[in-house]
Amino acid sequence: MDEINVPNVVITRLPRYYRYLEELMDEGVERVSSSELSERMGVTASQIRQDLNHFGGFGQQGYGYRVDFLHQEIARILGIDGVNHIILIGAGNLGQSLAKYTNYRKRGFLIEAIFDKDPEKIGKPVQQIRVSDIRDLPGYLKTHDVDIAAITIPKEEAVKVAEVLVKNGVKAIWNFAHTDLKVPPDVSVENVHLSESLMALSFKVKERRKKETE
Amino acid sequence: MDEINVPNVVITRLPRYYRYLEELMDEGVERVSSSELSERMGVTASQIRQDLNHFGGFGQQGYGYRVDFLHQEIARILGIDGVNHIILIGAGNLGQSLAKYTNYRKRGFLIEAIFDKDPEKIGKPVQQIRVSDIRDLPGYLKTHDVDIAAITIPKEEAVKVAEVLVKNGVKAIWNFAHTDLKVPPDVSVENVHLSESLMALSFKVKERRKKETE
Repeated sequence: MDEINVPNVVITRLPRYYRYLEELMDEGVERVSSSELSERMGVTASQIRQDLNHFGGFGQQGYGYRVDFLHQEIARILGIDGVNHIILIGAGNLGQSLAKYTNYRKRGFLIEAIFDKDPEKIGKPVQQIRVSDIRDLPGYLKTHDVDIAAITIPKEEAVKVAEVLVKNGVKAIWNFAHTDLKVPPDVSVENVHLSESLMALSFKVKERRKKETE
Repeated sequence: MDEINVPNVVITRLPRYYRYLEELMDEGVERVSSSELSERMGVTASQIRQDLNHFGGFGQQGYGYRVDFLHQEIARILGIDGVNHIILIGAGNLGQSLAKYTNYRKRGFLIEAIFDKDPEKIGKPVQQIRVSDIRDLPGYLKTHDVDIAAITIPKEEAVKVAEVLVKNGVKAIWNFAHTDLKVPPDVSVENVHLSESLMALSFKVKERRKKETE
């Protein structure tokens, strides 16, 4: 992908900071030192400072961070202070559960269209959105701004749909299909390979069992 | 968690090797050199050799890897050549989509019980499994071997359920709740924080847009 001047590992930590700050806000905490935040999150205080310094840093020596301010700043950095226009490819179980995960809306994510190829699903509503025919996807993309497309269909179809998305200017794909999509460098893909995290867990279960019987 | 002598980053790559080998098998490929595999996966050949050397290595100089053998060996390493007994906490949309994701069965994962607190859901079947009352969870755990518990309920309840699981000997949790569970060091947790991967994508969308307008 195009150069984004923040290491990927920092990018993946930002949402976690955001979540912890949200929890602190829920608890009514107004300010937090980097050492308190570090203990809570299980990362070092210097890590936190380094990560935030990519964006200018937000702490004051001897005072720490103002929770609501930092929360808001991270929202801005993440681009979730505005609206992200999302479309969903696949109205199956996973697609439906993503559509119903209303939490996203609070964080500036708005699912605006859902596509499927199944005649049984087309025309029926999922979370107040009428499912469209996947054949109408190119036309939709030509007339709507789409920030992120979520793909929740089997891998063979996912590869083809990704080509349509890229050809029509979509620059970000949230991929749940069980394959790595090949996209040009200016398109970002976040993969959620569910079975792979389950396999990693299986590995740990097995290793632990092996140790016990050793 | 207890010491597992394989770096976590290697563990997370194993399922990806497994997936690529599966694709090669589907294509009828019988053997693959580490450089071919590396090109396909977008990692270096030396990375692949190093990763596999944690488990003894499986290549032959000048011959490469036998695809079916390596696939089978990685399945064994991951512990998915046998059966993993799974229970599911939460019969909501996400829980249902996990239960229906039958692919798991192929990879040695067997969902054996589903728990929920909603009277509307209790007693009704999800994928041929009758949903049980969450109050029966401790009793179930005392009489069944559970390898992995998947949690797909809101965070406040997730924290309480995790305590019940840990107290009753469950050593691996697949966590979809929007919080980091605090567990003893001998319990493994794999988090799938969906909204966090979406936020990382949002960040990249925003950064790219910023660059375009610069």
